[in-house]
Amino acid sequence: MPADLSLLIPGRARASRVLLDHDLADLAGLAGGRAAIIVTDGNVRRCQGPRFPGWPVVEVGTGEAAKTLATVETLARALIAARVDRRTLVVGLGGGVVSDVTGFVASTLLRGVPFAFAPTSLLAQVDAAIGGKNGVNLDGFKNLIGTVTQPEFVLADHRVLETLPAAERRSGVAEVIKAAAIGDAALFTLLEADVDAVLACARPAVARVVERAVRIKLRLVAADERDDADRRLLNFGHTLGHAVERVFGFSHGEAVAIGMVAAARVSVARGLLARGDAERIERLVRRAGLPAACPPGRWADLLAAIEVDKKRVGGRQSGVLVRGIGEAIVADVADGEWQEALA
Amino acid sequence: MPADLSLLIPGRARASRVLLDHDLADLAGLAGGRAAIIVTDGNVRRCQGPRFPGWPVVEVGTGEAAKTLATVETLARALIAARVDRRTLVVGLGGGVVSDVTGFVASTLLRGVPFAFAPTSLLAQVDAAIGGKNGVNLDGFKNLIGTVTQPEFVLADHRVLETLPAAERRSGVAEVIKAAAIGDAALFTLLEADVDAVLACARPAVARVVERAVRIKLRLVAADERDDADRRLLNFGHTLGHAVERVFGFSHGEAVAIGMVAAARVSVARGLLARGDAERIERLVRRAGLPAACPPGRWADLLAAIEVDKKRVGGRQSGVLVRGIGEAIVADVADGEWQEALA
Repeated sequence: MPADLSLLIPGRARASRVLLDHDLADLAGLAGGRAAIIVTDGNVRRCQGPRFPGWPVVEVGTGEAAKTLATVETLARALIAARVDRRTLVVGLGGGVVSDVTGFVASTLLRGVPFAFAPTSLLAQVDAAIGGKNGVNLDGFKNLIGTVTQPEFVLADHRVLETLPAAERRSGVAEVIKAAAIGDAALFTLLEADVDAVLACARPAVARVVERAVRIKLRLVAADERDDADRRLLNFGHTLGHAVERVFGFSHGEAVAIGMVAAARVSVARGLLARGDAERIERLVRRAGLPAACPPGRWADLLAAIEVDKKRVGGRQSGVLVRGIGEAIVADVADGEWQEALA
Repeated sequence: MPADLSLLIPGRARASRVLLDHDLADLAGLAGGRAAIIVTDGNVRRCQGPRFPGWPVVEVGTGEAAKTLATVETLARALIAARVDRRTLVVGLGGGVVSDVTGFVASTLLRGVPFAFAPTSLLAQVDAAIGGKNGVNLDGFKNLIGTVTQPEFVLADHRVLETLPAAERRSGVAEVIKAAAIGDAALFTLLEADVDAVLACARPAVARVVERAVRIKLRLVAADERDDADRRLLNFGHTLGHAVERVFGFSHGEAVAIGMVAAARVSVARGLLARGDAERIERLVRRAGLPAACPPGRWADLLAAIEVDKKRVGGRQSGVLVRGIGEAIVADVADGEWQEALA
């Protein structure tokens, strides 16, 4: 079922629209006669190109390695060559890397041009394209340079997920599990029933879980766009996850899965969470084909990576724990607690 | 006389403070015990270094050539190495290039860290450091990538101007003349009396004109932070000026002076401005040691440069004309009108 949600940041004049289970063909109408330019990558263009509206297309590289200031420069130059001006709509049509880079360039080119996203990965539809965070990496540290700027709209067409590799679907499911664990017990139950259908990209199942996951994110972002309070709950699984991603080279979704299972164990050790609920999280992670633990050893490297992340944000990179499925809190987690949860 | 002004953008929770005729020594108190890092350039450090607060110092290159994404990357890396976090105050202490680059990096590093400016050129004190526009150039086009983000505060110490080369003082005076022409007839009269004292950096004269010029800019920015309406009046002298700067290589202030004299002539030709008032503008420009005209010829190049600028902003780069000293309007100016004014 198509859903028209919106994100209104307090004090902001206009809401950002979030259109779920819509059709790529709706993009033309949303542009409303304005000139528009599509930013995508080669993979997405190969799979979905025939369904693009007839606008000029600019490509960026694929994968996390493309998230650099060099790509920003190349993309800005390409948009200028395609005659972008302050009224042109720039549409990032692709996965999380496309939306992260497109959002950053559009937020800064000519000091800001209108932009929108049509996310094509499950992870981008439930997470990366929602909430206005954008940016690029520097020296291997993620999203070190970026802004928080809301797109005019996000349009998610779930049919595009059918061409997605299985590993990428699993990565997206990890963020859906996260959303459920921190904010929606009913979504968690729904996932326990439907995870196979979601992984198979069966459209009614996908539409149901994406809408619920997006609603959780929109609620947290509306309350705290700049990430000082509520929005930090979205980091469930990410404190340790980022370190695991960096040290072992797991995909983002896999690393978050490992991080969530560890955070659930810390929550149990603190008496916040029933052991049975932690087991439900671990079981769902495994059923989604995601890892629940990382290889043993390398604790010193993981600790160093957690420390760097903490320093980066002024000591505010605390852990997120759950006290019951569907309810999360921000908490200071000692290094020893993470280590025990991994053991 | 020290002046404490402030810029409050409607809907924004906190005002940006503008402290004029203050002392660099006040910076420490304004940081209020927070960690801070100074961004400056080699020239400013040589002249003013002994007066810097005892914070870590990071240098960027000098001149317009330093306004690139490469500098953004280098500066971001240097700030990370200096252990910046989301609570560290980053202080751009220098001229317009330092504030443009520092403002952009601070607005995007870790998606935004607190920042402030201590402008050390007359041009930066009356113009570049005020109003929140920041950014870098791309392929020779000015400020193609940037944001509009207000600094926490701007502190102008007019004593630092004493070490400024004469050409740079003249450039600053050009922007003061601009402010007077578009918004303050009394400031224009004051300048006619005091221009020599301002060029000599006599402090009471400088403090008087800087405060009046800054008040005009703050009024226009508060009404129109994003440059869709009133703020465009600040472009007086800049439409043709940018073209002259690009084609002939004049300094920004010199180019703006030439642009203002030409715009005044267009205003006279349209019957908006008395001939005597146009002569007052030209006379003041010359008394400040600024050029009132560019060498003959190269009209085609100038026209091409104006066109590029227009396209860049979606046809909205109109001219600014004056109808009496102290009152400006935005108007469509035909190429032929610029050409006649230059002839």
